[in-house]
Amino acid sequence: MVKPSIPKGTRDFTPETLLKRNYIFDIIRQTFERFGFVPIETPAMENLSTLMGKYGEEGDQLLFKILNSGDFLKQVDLSQDQDYRKVASQICEKGLRYDLTIPFARYVVMHRHEITLPFKRYQIQPVWRADRPQKGRYREFYQCDADVIGSDSLLCEAELMLLYDEVFTRLQLPVRIKINNRKILQGLAETVGCSSMLSDITTAIDKLDKVGTEGVRQELQERFLPQEAIDRIMQYLQLSFAELPAFLANSAAGIQGIAEVTQVMDFLASTPLKNELVADPALARGLNYYTGCIFEVQATQLQIGSIGGGGRYDNLTGTFGMPGISGVGISFGAERIYDVMEQMGLFPEKITKTSAVVLFACFDVAAQRFAMPLAQQLRHAGISVEVYPEPVKIKKQLEYADRRAIPHVVILGSEEMASGLLTVKNMQTGQQQQLTVEALISQLTE
Amino acid sequence: MVKPSIPKGTRDFTPETLLKRNYIFDIIRQTFERFGFVPIETPAMENLSTLMGKYGEEGDQLLFKILNSGDFLKQVDLSQDQDYRKVASQICEKGLRYDLTIPFARYVVMHRHEITLPFKRYQIQPVWRADRPQKGRYREFYQCDADVIGSDSLLCEAELMLLYDEVFTRLQLPVRIKINNRKILQGLAETVGCSSMLSDITTAIDKLDKVGTEGVRQELQERFLPQEAIDRIMQYLQLSFAELPAFLANSAAGIQGIAEVTQVMDFLASTPLKNELVADPALARGLNYYTGCIFEVQATQLQIGSIGGGGRYDNLTGTFGMPGISGVGISFGAERIYDVMEQMGLFPEKITKTSAVVLFACFDVAAQRFAMPLAQQLRHAGISVEVYPEPVKIKKQLEYADRRAIPHVVILGSEEMASGLLTVKNMQTGQQQQLTVEALISQLTE
Repeated sequence: MVKPSIPKGTRDFTPETLLKRNYIFDIIRQTFERFGFVPIETPAMENLSTLMGKYGEEGDQLLFKILNSGDFLKQVDLSQDQDYRKVASQICEKGLRYDLTIPFARYVVMHRHEITLPFKRYQIQPVWRADRPQKGRYREFYQCDADVIGSDSLLCEAELMLLYDEVFTRLQLPVRIKINNRKILQGLAETVGCSSMLSDITTAIDKLDKVGTEGVRQELQERFLPQEAIDRIMQYLQLSFAELPAFLANSAAGIQGIAEVTQVMDFLASTPLKNELVADPALARGLNYYTGCIFEVQATQLQIGSIGGGGRYDNLTGTFGMPGISGVGISFGAERIYDVMEQMGLFPEKITKTSAVVLFACFDVAAQRFAMPLAQQLRHAGISVEVYPEPVKIKKQLEYADRRAIPHVVILGSEEMASGLLTVKNMQTGQQQQLTVEALISQLTE
Repeated sequence: MVKPSIPKGTRDFTPETLLKRNYIFDIIRQTFERFGFVPIETPAMENLSTLMGKYGEEGDQLLFKILNSGDFLKQVDLSQDQDYRKVASQICEKGLRYDLTIPFARYVVMHRHEITLPFKRYQIQPVWRADRPQKGRYREFYQCDADVIGSDSLLCEAELMLLYDEVFTRLQLPVRIKINNRKILQGLAETVGCSSMLSDITTAIDKLDKVGTEGVRQELQERFLPQEAIDRIMQYLQLSFAELPAFLANSAAGIQGIAEVTQVMDFLASTPLKNELVADPALARGLNYYTGCIFEVQATQLQIGSIGGGGRYDNLTGTFGMPGISGVGISFGAERIYDVMEQMGLFPEKITKTSAVVLFACFDVAAQRFAMPLAQQLRHAGISVEVYPEPVKIKKQLEYADRRAIPHVVILGSEEMASGLLTVKNMQTGQQQQLTVEALISQLTE
């Protein structure tokens, strides 16, 4: 008999972990809804024609592909040597969702006649990537995205900053929210005389946190930027946001980018954030499809990379034949948020309890029968209750309560059944009280 | 450009549908927790060695298999004609979860050292089956399971009946809960002299609702039961539970089964259910692994098959080398529950609203800026709020509120900014009020 295992890079979630994860998801979900975002869900499987070619060549390799059902070899000629990629495309039509953005774009196109613009949607679902598993990187993990499509207003960006602020405030996790604008980076490219190399510049600057300024310099050299341009980019990376207008004075795009970030800040002037909000010229973001404001969130008290990010894009659905849909979105890195909160001990005691609040420990079957309607009464008052299923020794039932961290045990025997008064043991203090069921309910719900 | 589509048998969930689905899941989840069940989650992908051979030959064919990453052909010789099943096992190591029971069994074995028995777990996750899609049958659908393992007490069965009763009462969906016991069916098999054909008898009786008594008779004939036995089984199917003791008097198993059902009923004597609970000798359930009490739930006001079921089993984890783990579980058929509730119009009006409660409609950008802190104040009071992102004509903003069914619109212009009094339009009555933000909050939260 082989010992059972799970695929590498995947995880079981125990009750304890899951309650903590759901604490994070619930706060994100509730905040999304407070800001008027509505949920959608898409299937785990998408057609490969929807997914392929959307995440670069490397992304295509990281898609989990699903074997066609039935005799998948029927139409395939395998008699000669073939490239495995070509064979895969013949025997697999479907793949697992790689992110939530492409499925959202596909959703918008398919449901365009029922969607009212501006459309504010959120989506919290797992995605799958055949990445090499390593610490903190999994093959199955959750993404939490919110997007507003169909409006160019910078009010959307401002509200998303408030949303970030709200979520991390409620999680009690102090963060720095960085904002920049792709037009500012375009202005930089123009200013240093390398307009056509915007993507190289963005990619290099995006690595700043990881590799430092010297690393960025090297990356730019490897990408064959002229030395003079590289020197000016190094200069740029030292600038504060206030110094940008002078530096980018000759770029219309740069000026526009500065104006947009300023306008977002203006919208927030009367609702100061509880967390830091910094306009950071050195923020670049890796993805190519951003065209306006970009954001990134970092925990201030731990070095762990970004725990959130997003930005504005011009063309969500063009790849599916529906041009002109622009929008702006943010994402929460739930897995990393979990890790940070765990390391910092930020999960409230209450939600780490994986158990009922009350256990009925009964001397015999008669006491169990007596317990049933009482347990129901507590449950109807919203209290989570277990009745220990076997009338074994009370000591054993108390041990179970202890191991499960159940804080209150009602001990039921013939005396309690006669008097109607319950013996309630507080498992933390060891104290026992005699209470009516009503008194117990009001103690536990006050 | 090919119009995008999704794989057949899968679904997108729009906000409207999703809020209704989550209404059902939330009630099930909350009730599970009130009864002391704790959640677990397992990966979407399991090793095929975990899944294969657990669901019968047909089940193996219905598993979605995932192509190995990288060059999956490397170790495979495809030069000669091969059986596609054999090839599949060479190029796929993983498959998508087919149900929640086998992953739970695998979980119990892998986590046995951290589990305290009795262990009450629930699990609400999607499963995937390469079934032929048809009305009401999907290739991706949710299962909602609760199981107690590690206790033989019939109190567990009684509590699960209460749990069913509670969920369907809260959903306002009247149901009939049927209970029977596999030992009673064993007693039937013994009594008619066909002990070795219990599985044939169970399978045939399980079809009673679909094919009627004559259909069952035919099925039994096709399975070569003696005519006399068939006649007695037909007789049995007419019996009430009260008449069983006489009929099964000579079978120890039968007597035991009757006693177990009776004991479950005794546990429930002082907590009468709000729905019907019927001991039904003709209830059989299809699955082979049940050994004790079995349950099934049907909507009383619509013919739609079972919307829940479960039972007691002896050996959850034997197939993974860990014998002796018995338990009892129930399952909710969430997809069918949704269909029934939709047909009967049981979803509360409130949860079908896919929108914010308040929209701020602003005359200009100054009014938008003014709106931001007010919107935040409402959100902090738990109210879902949108600020319309563009300062277009108020008429257009009101149309948006109308299409999105947002019930209250705050119209903000220079007058409101000067006075601090908000103009609040009730979109249903058309009436307008002048209110302070505090007054609006207390109106909306009372």
